Amino acid sequence: MKITVLGSGAMGGLFGAYLSRENEVTMVDRSEEKVSKMKTEGLVVNEPDGSSNVFHPNAVTSTEGMEPADLIIIFMNSRFSEAALNSNKGIMGPNTYLMTLQNGSGHEELLGKFVPQENIIIGTTQHNANSQIPAVSNHGGSGVTHLGVVTGSASRLQHIADTFTACGLEADVSDDVQKMIWNKMFTNVSASALTAVLQMPLGYITANENAWAVCQKLIREAVDVAAAMGMEFDYDQKVAEVKAVCDNGPKGLTSIYTDVKNGRRSEVDTISGSIARAGKKKGVPTPTHDCIINLIHAMEVKGEYK
Amino acid sequence: MKITVLGSGAMGGLFGAYLSRENEVTMVDRSEEKVSKMKTEGLVVNEPDGSSNVFHPNAVTSTEGMEPADLIIIFMNSRFSEAALNSNKGIMGPNTYLMTLQNGSGHEELLGKFVPQENIIIGTTQHNANSQIPAVSNHGGSGVTHLGVVTGSASRLQHIADTFTACGLEADVSDDVQKMIWNKMFTNVSASALTAVLQMPLGYITANENAWAVCQKLIREAVDVAAAMGMEFDYDQKVAEVKAVCDNGPKGLTSIYTDVKNGRRSEVDTISGSIARAGKKKGVPTPTHDCIINLIHAMEVKGEYK
Repeated sequence: MKITVLGSGAMGGLFGAYLSRENEVTMVDRSEEKVSKMKTEGLVVNEPDGSSNVFHPNAVTSTEGMEPADLIIIFMNSRFSEAALNSNKGIMGPNTYLMTLQNGSGHEELLGKFVPQENIIIGTTQHNANSQIPAVSNHGGSGVTHLGVVTGSASRLQHIADTFTACGLEADVSDDVQKMIWNKMFTNVSASALTAVLQMPLGYITANENAWAVCQKLIREAVDVAAAMGMEFDYDQKVAEVKAVCDNGPKGLTSIYTDVKNGRRSEVDTISGSIARAGKKKGVPTPTHDCIINLIHAMEVKGEYK
Repeated sequence: MKITVLGSGAMGGLFGAYLSRENEVTMVDRSEEKVSKMKTEGLVVNEPDGSSNVFHPNAVTSTEGMEPADLIIIFMNSRFSEAALNSNKGIMGPNTYLMTLQNGSGHEELLGKFVPQENIIIGTTQHNANSQIPAVSNHGGSGVTHLGVVTGSASRLQHIADTFTACGLEADVSDDVQKMIWNKMFTNVSASALTAVLQMPLGYITANENAWAVCQKLIREAVDVAAAMGMEFDYDQKVAEVKAVCDNGPKGLTSIYTDVKNGRRSEVDTISGSIARAGKKKGVPTPTHDCIINLIHAMEVKGEYK
């Protein structure tokens, strides 16, 4: 398959590298430095066991003039998704699948502006990676990648799941992927969001009764919004899961915590924001999420205030 | 009149000192140091014009064995009100008025545990004062003190208002005092509370659109709770007033900001908390206040987390 990966950060690098084992992969990134490094030195994946592999997909800063891809995977901070899709319209043909495995939910809305509904692939992956050096992905945890569609049956994606699996990225297709995406969001929209607002690690969220009260309200609202969308989650179970995440990694600092601490724009709009938007659409109030989202945005730019 | 002032901080000191001009005033404070200083050196009031006066009311750490007072004024951080009232039950006779001019609303509930409804005086004052040295009050702004009752007509308090006025604390009686108390709370429960959560000055609350969005929700909820209690406030007017406070004193730091910054317990429960409690009683949701109250409490004790 002709696969284009938009965004060559840690996760894009990991997926692009692996998929290049059996596919014609093109990495796209706005950074000249990163593209030139991928071209000359290749794309490096450092595995958790200490081993390291170098891959040689194509790398470009622009897809202008290129033929349509079979599959485009968008792998970047979602704040930049729309601009990236706009810059790469040329490689979207009538048969091009457009896939998002980004954090948060509701990305299909944006993707629907670029390709027909039946060409959208949404999914969630258990892989994680980070990157300190351009074109070098440090592979963390592994696991299954679940792929699904927004209309019709997901079985038509089997060949895509198969090539993922063949390349070392175990994948399956599921008609329940939306629920899997939401399932993954509960900790992010509750405890993680609060680590940003309070500027404290995950352990504080369960240790402090007031932080925990807000956390539970965030979970409650998210469960209610999901229910209105036809996805049933058990509130008590979700509370127990979020509590376990905090208690098992009490010193854990989240990316949204770090973004706020460093005065950077966070991904709150795609994560917590997707709960608030879905709630609005379904008529389910999400006042606690609304408050937290506003507070995080207000904190992101504190350093710019004179 | 025999007047006892519970709490000899900046405001208690100011009122006790002034009232001692024409009344038999007893200052009560748990601090031996402060009481002994009041006894030996007197109670000092520094005026905004640079002048300074020394007053000599009685001063005690305990009212045990004393006769009932005509009027007890409670002037302390409301977190300590209940303990103070319990320690001074002995001076509450059948004709003793118990007065609160504390920040926030709803103090009459606590006072009702100690004296009959008709002996409760609630009110609000435009005076302000701060204190850096025990038994020394730095008088800031002045203005009218409005006194009212929770049952019947406030006209029966005229003699109390008269002695306040005669002592230099201009006072009147009003059957609308509950509304005056609420009227004063809007900035405290919105912009001031947010300065604590965001750890930014008042100007930031209007300057940042996300902070301002939360601020307006806090005002909206407070206006709705007030309406359910029979007090009509105009939302747009309140928003304009709060905005003016922020815009006119953009560098202003609030006491709740300072409390949170220094890891001290704030008065959020008596101020924002009184909105949330009244809302609960009247069936008016206050999710944004609930969230802010929890966050402030969670922030107060961050420094104690290991």
